[in-house]
Amino acid sequence: MNQPNAADKPFKRLLLTGAAGNLGRQLRGALAQWADVVRLSDIAPLDDAASHEEVSAVDLADREKVMQLVEGVDAIVHLGGISIDAPFDDLIEANIRGTYNLYEAARRHGVKRIVFASSNHAIGFHPVTEVLDADSPLRPDSLYGVTKCFGESLSRYYFDRFGIETVCLRIGSSFEEPKNPRMLVTFLSYRDFIELVRCSLFTNRVGHAVVYGASDNPVKWWDNAKAGFIGFNPQDSSTQFNGLFPVTAPSAERDDPARRFQGGAFVLGEPMERKR
Amino acid sequence: MNQPNAADKPFKRLLLTGAAGNLGRQLRGALAQWADVVRLSDIAPLDDAASHEEVSAVDLADREKVMQLVEGVDAIVHLGGISIDAPFDDLIEANIRGTYNLYEAARRHGVKRIVFASSNHAIGFHPVTEVLDADSPLRPDSLYGVTKCFGESLSRYYFDRFGIETVCLRIGSSFEEPKNPRMLVTFLSYRDFIELVRCSLFTNRVGHAVVYGASDNPVKWWDNAKAGFIGFNPQDSSTQFNGLFPVTAPSAERDDPARRFQGGAFVLGEPMERKR
Amino acid sequence: MNQPNAADKPFKRLLLTGAAGNLGRQLRGALAQWADVVRLSDIAPLDDAASHEEVSAVDLADREKVMQLVEGVDAIVHLGGISIDAPFDDLIEANIRGTYNLYEAARRHGVKRIVFASSNHAIGFHPVTEVLDADSPLRPDSLYGVTKCFGESLSRYYFDRFGIETVCLRIGSSFEEPKNPRMLVTFLSYRDFIELVRCSLFTNRVGHAVVYGASDNPVKWWDNAKAGFIGFNPQDSSTQFNGLFPVTAPSAERDDPARRFQGGAFVLGEPMERKR
Amino acid sequence: MNQPNAADKPFKRLLLTGAAGNLGRQLRGALAQWADVVRLSDIAPLDDAASHEEVSAVDLADREKVMQLVEGVDAIVHLGGISIDAPFDDLIEANIRGTYNLYEAARRHGVKRIVFASSNHAIGFHPVTEVLDADSPLRPDSLYGVTKCFGESLSRYYFDRFGIETVCLRIGSSFEEPKNPRMLVTFLSYRDFIELVRCSLFTNRVGHAVVYGASDNPVKWWDNAKAGFIGFNPQDSSTQFNGLFPVTAPSAERDDPARRFQGGAFVLGEPMERKR
Amino acid sequence: MNQPNAADKPFKRLLLTGAAGNLGRQLRGALAQWADVVRLSDIAPLDDAASHEEVSAVDLADREKVMQLVEGVDAIVHLGGISIDAPFDDLIEANIRGTYNLYEAARRHGVKRIVFASSNHAIGFHPVTEVLDADSPLRPDSLYGVTKCFGESLSRYYFDRFGIETVCLRIGSSFEEPKNPRMLVTFLSYRDFIELVRCSLFTNRVGHAVVYGASDNPVKWWDNAKAGFIGFNPQDSSTQFNGLFPVTAPSAERDDPARRFQGGAFVLGEPMERKR
Amino acid sequence: MNQPNAADKPFKRLLLTGAAGNLGRQLRGALAQWADVVRLSDIAPLDDAASHEEVSAVDLADREKVMQLVEGVDAIVHLGGISIDAPFDDLIEANIRGTYNLYEAARRHGVKRIVFASSNHAIGFHPVTEVLDADSPLRPDSLYGVTKCFGESLSRYYFDRFGIETVCLRIGSSFEEPKNPRMLVTFLSYRDFIELVRCSLFTNRVGHAVVYGASDNPVKWWDNAKAGFIGFNPQDSSTQFNGLFPVTAPSAERDDPARRFQGGAFVLGEPMERKR
Repeated sequence: MNQPNAADKPFKRLLLTGAAGNLGRQLRGALAQWADVVRLSDIAPLDDAASHEEVSAVDLADREKVMQLVEGVDAIVHLGGISIDAPFDDLIEANIRGTYNLYEAARRHGVKRIVFASSNHAIGFHPVTEVLDADSPLRPDSLYGVTKCFGESLSRYYFDRFGIETVCLRIGSSFEEPKNPRMLVTFLSYRDFIELVRCSLFTNRVGHAVVYGASDNPVKWWDNAKAGFIGFNPQDSSTQFNGLFPVTAPSAERDDPARRFQGGAFVLGEPMERKR
Repeated sequence: MNQPNAADKPFKRLLLTGAAGNLGRQLRGALAQWADVVRLSDIAPLDDAASHEEVSAVDLADREKVMQLVEGVDAIVHLGGISIDAPFDDLIEANIRGTYNLYEAARRHGVKRIVFASSNHAIGFHPVTEVLDADSPLRPDSLYGVTKCFGESLSRYYFDRFGIETVCLRIGSSFEEPKNPRMLVTFLSYRDFIELVRCSLFTNRVGHAVVYGASDNPVKWWDNAKAGFIGFNPQDSSTQFNGLFPVTAPSAERDDPARRFQGGAFVLGEPMERKR
Repeated sequence: MNQPNAADKPFKRLLLTGAAGNLGRQLRGALAQWADVVRLSDIAPLDDAASHEEVSAVDLADREKVMQLVEGVDAIVHLGGISIDAPFDDLIEANIRGTYNLYEAARRHGVKRIVFASSNHAIGFHPVTEVLDADSPLRPDSLYGVTKCFGESLSRYYFDRFGIETVCLRIGSSFEEPKNPRMLVTFLSYRDFIELVRCSLFTNRVGHAVVYGASDNPVKWWDNAKAGFIGFNPQDSSTQFNGLFPVTAPSAERDDPARRFQGGAFVLGEPMERKR
Repeated sequence: MNQPNAADKPFKRLLLTGAAGNLGRQLRGALAQWADVVRLSDIAPLDDAASHEEVSAVDLADREKVMQLVEGVDAIVHLGGISIDAPFDDLIEANIRGTYNLYEAARRHGVKRIVFASSNHAIGFHPVTEVLDADSPLRPDSLYGVTKCFGESLSRYYFDRFGIETVCLRIGSSFEEPKNPRMLVTFLSYRDFIELVRCSLFTNRVGHAVVYGASDNPVKWWDNAKAGFIGFNPQDSSTQFNGLFPVTAPSAERDDPARRFQGGAFVLGEPMERKR
Repeated sequence: MNQPNAADKPFKRLLLTGAAGNLGRQLRGALAQWADVVRLSDIAPLDDAASHEEVSAVDLADREKVMQLVEGVDAIVHLGGISIDAPFDDLIEANIRGTYNLYEAARRHGVKRIVFASSNHAIGFHPVTEVLDADSPLRPDSLYGVTKCFGESLSRYYFDRFGIETVCLRIGSSFEEPKNPRMLVTFLSYRDFIELVRCSLFTNRVGHAVVYGASDNPVKWWDNAKAGFIGFNPQDSSTQFNGLFPVTAPSAERDDPARRFQGGAFVLGEPMERKR
Repeated sequence: MNQPNAADKPFKRLLLTGAAGNLGRQLRGALAQWADVVRLSDIAPLDDAASHEEVSAVDLADREKVMQLVEGVDAIVHLGGISIDAPFDDLIEANIRGTYNLYEAARRHGVKRIVFASSNHAIGFHPVTEVLDADSPLRPDSLYGVTKCFGESLSRYYFDRFGIETVCLRIGSSFEEPKNPRMLVTFLSYRDFIELVRCSLFTNRVGHAVVYGASDNPVKWWDNAKAGFIGFNPQDSSTQFNGLFPVTAPSAERDDPARRFQGGAFVLGEPMERKR
């Protein structure tokens, strides 16, 4: 990886939404290397801003606030919104209206590159006995996954119509370490996640691309060959966590939907009512 | 076409949403042949109910009303919602929240078959020099088209998760006659439209299917070979309208986006603000 | 169809195995138009031979008898063997050893063209919501279907190794008329069956080809586009039988495996013990 | 087919090269219906010009003459060049330098549409047991075929670089009637040929397209489904010529390369020396 | 590789057929790590059983013996049968009746996972200038290869019908070292073979999978990308054996079928008579 | 890599055309390891011949000279011709007539293997957001690229018709080091180039193959999986040159055709007039 020195940061200002979340916190430090100013936004409280940071508490469903948030930025890493299954009325505000607001703001302010945190749950109803690539059909495993499909379609439209480039990251499971055997397959180390965002921001031209976010794990459900032009080459592997889970023979639970489909336990969820 | 006689209508009760619209009005008569009771719904005024009809004015965004609307029906033809480009906040209510409400109601009431009026605008940013099939990538040409992509993804989820079957009809241009040269390609006669709905309702098992709705026109942008199991064989052709438009040589306007892409003038639209 | 006159029949001697069966009896007359001598074989009794016919009662599992049977023929239409599910030990004799014997005899006697009655049951475990072509993976629906897969592989070998050309006919349901609603899809009229055999025998070069045997029915599970070089263009359609079965709405039985898979009731069979 | 009346011909001036050849003569009359002025060119003598015609004897290898020839035309039907196998030095002048000259002239004079007579000999080394479409790999069967591949590549370049649209017609065998059994497959009636040129000229936008030129013959080696946007629907079939050739059983000659490959006898040719 | 310790072996009892063969002997030690009891079977004499082993001399063609053999096992590694070309009557007993007996026994005893030693000879008539994957068509190079195709079809049926999962291993050449230049391509080290079996046994869900068995050799005829869900990542390469064979320029023998096709010398075999 | 020792060089005589060029000079030393005699040819002056070398100044457009040049060689590495854009009349002589002369000479002298230096400019009008393989359509980015397409088609013909095998190397950018950021993607180290030629010469059977020539660079536009049978495994990567170019954010110039298409600045060229 070719890191610019502090004196000539390639971006003037980058916007990170969802900055208070798990992955947002990981990315915060990296962005400082790439941009003079890092603007951070979340609906949840954020740590205090460093000198190169601008912090802004914004509900993505608030169009005017989002319009202000996007002003003056070179590119956006959009991790914001709800990242678990939730009542659909909530998902509409955060993931549908919110994502629309962000793209509309990008259009009006002339932002030409967005890195969009999609999710493996956009394709989670494919069985674990298939290997997918960027052209595999959408098969969301939850209403959350449906809203990620929406974001992919919306960003495709903004590219075809207005030339705003998006890399859709179908992120697997990005944590310190895998939390269950499924994550040995879907694991994306923080280091590889940051590298994936770096490739998505710096590749000169990306069009509208779909890339799976997984480390170089031994079992592979996703094949990134069609996204080779992004230059993402993961350095980590879940093999380091082999001792975490006991080795077991296949059992009757292989027929459990949570074991049969790539989305894991997400496929068992049901539409929820909003709490009042 | 094999028409049942009045004595043994195969469905007890069919629901038609969007019954006051152009296509809804076409379908109203046909449904009477197929079901003892036809329940009609629209947000716009409907003609008086015949003896076999139940008429209901429902805003699809109203979850409770939709829940009542769906009770007791065998299958649904969902033409409701906004069928032109519109402010996104309006599209959210009619096409996103509304479609979600319908599928949730279907799930709760055990309805197992929905015919969903998707649109060619879900793929309208493909160039006119390509022939698409059911597996071609989504390329919506408008925010309206994006909401149709949403409906396709949502219905995929309800099939994979709950077994509710959907036929997504990517309807071309269904009018009395083509209104411009583009519609010589996208024309779907009313007769063929009704036959397409019939196939979608009566085929014993459809899974989650995508079918293009066009008559047997001489120029073809869409290939339904992968949906052969639906049994849709259009009987009409736009050749009967050859005299409608002057024959002209290709001109510089072939580079106009409205001529380059399948979606026609839709690709020129821009996101609108809601009127207040 | 271009019928030769009696004076210049293109083949000197054709062999038809399984001549006493349903389809064998249909073909018997047609073969007389194409060959000076028609040799007929079956393990079951055959009608008396006409002057241009040679009749031979042969158990295909008897290698020496088969060797004699094949001597002196120009081409073979191989309908023989067991054409329903049966105890595997019986299928071995009739469909595995028998087919091997036939190909070995063809190799030794220099016969270069065989029309092999494979079956839709070689692919019957594909769902009814898929359209297959010649390259779709084998998914037999029964042990009977497995033996048809064997015949297809065996004939591929005899082509690659010895240049013996085979057309594998994946025959649907060839009867006077459809016997159940499934057969409205799989129906192959006797006339179309004969034409399919004619194309398979007369096309100058066929290599090793797979062709589906169905009439031009409205619902299509099989796409013969890749076999266009055979020139099979069915003339009949099951639409003439639309009144045979009542029109019904989809019901819970759509989840019955016999309705979900192309093979129909075959998918419900279980391995049988041989009667002793 | 929608024919304009004389009063409002869609093109002002069309150029036809190779106008003295077999197909050029067929087209000459049709062009009069479509353009006020038809400019005709050939290296061979042409019949006298009608009042709406301009006749010009041009060697396509002569750049300056070609430059003049193209001036002022709206579109070009390029049948010129050598259409049989020939010494390569001759093919260079007529088919390589000549075609380059024509495209360069089109570029300089702003002509935006060319209908290019490619040939089935660009793909003639595919076996007769395959069905090809527009994306099948090039497999020329002769040096003549190689120069047609060159024309297809050259026209692709002029489209990608300069926006000049081309329809490459991979013409089968266009004669009064088939001259041998192979032509029952490759036959293109004169009427269908003219219709194919009409579609290629009038379709508003064609990009760079490849279309096979065959009538609706019973045996099909070529599938035009991917060129459905051209709207070519042949009306004739070689079945009318079934009596022309005796019906024969396949024989050892099926292994003759001229019977094994789609190009027929062309595959037997060898590079020739130029006659001096 | 994550090895369980002796105290918690994941399987209670594994069955290995063909245990006396070359690969069976390699696997015998590995199985001890994975199962409390290893049941070994062969028609040939086996070494004495260790304390954790059960040894059983069984002819796979003997249905009752096979039924007993399978009782009480968790999973099966089926290497048994004839693994070279042989008279077809012998292949029927060992590879066709024998494999059927094994799957029937698995069905009756509720065994849900079988690792089936298929062979590269199931696809050996593909040329050496092609790269195959799991969906490449079957092209057996010998009667032996045909029986492996049979095993693949049979196991597909038992999966689709009865849910018995199978990994079909299309094993290349697994020996101490390559025996000829072809095996530099097809080489599968013993270590990689054992790892391949381990992946096939332990992956929680495999459905019906086809995996090629080759080490990470420099020349690749087979691409396992579609089987990435198995997690097989070979550690060895035939480059270590580069010195074994002299480096030679291509010669006329490249046209020898044994050099043209992936199956090597197998493609030269001919059907054999059984010795009496 | 398995290098033969001096005593038993596998080839007797290899011909290298274009030996005075950049890549020709790199290869000159390597060829000495593989052949007793290395014949070198160029239109430009060559360094003095070593004892194992034969040097010959030949204009490839001169058929008789080329005929002599090819006599007595075992195989040819054809780097000769013009390797930049140039007036088309010049390209005709060097790349079209010249390549034809070479293949004709090979045919007459019985040479059965040619390694042909094609170019990435044969596919340079594909966008940088696509990953290509050996079957991607030709999209030349220049007249130079069109002549490379010609060479690929011509060599395909000589293989199908006369059995002369060719490996078409679509060489990226082979220099000491990348000269601009694009070359970080297209870089082919000299060492990897030599290895690619070695694989192309020594693989026993190659048929007619297309291989991309790039090192193992982090960004990949080309996927060689379908050419795995060649055994080319690059050892170098452009990552070593990461410091050569400043890291910059994407900018408006991403819309510059030279940044949008794989061919880089070549796509901006225009047909040139020959200097007189």
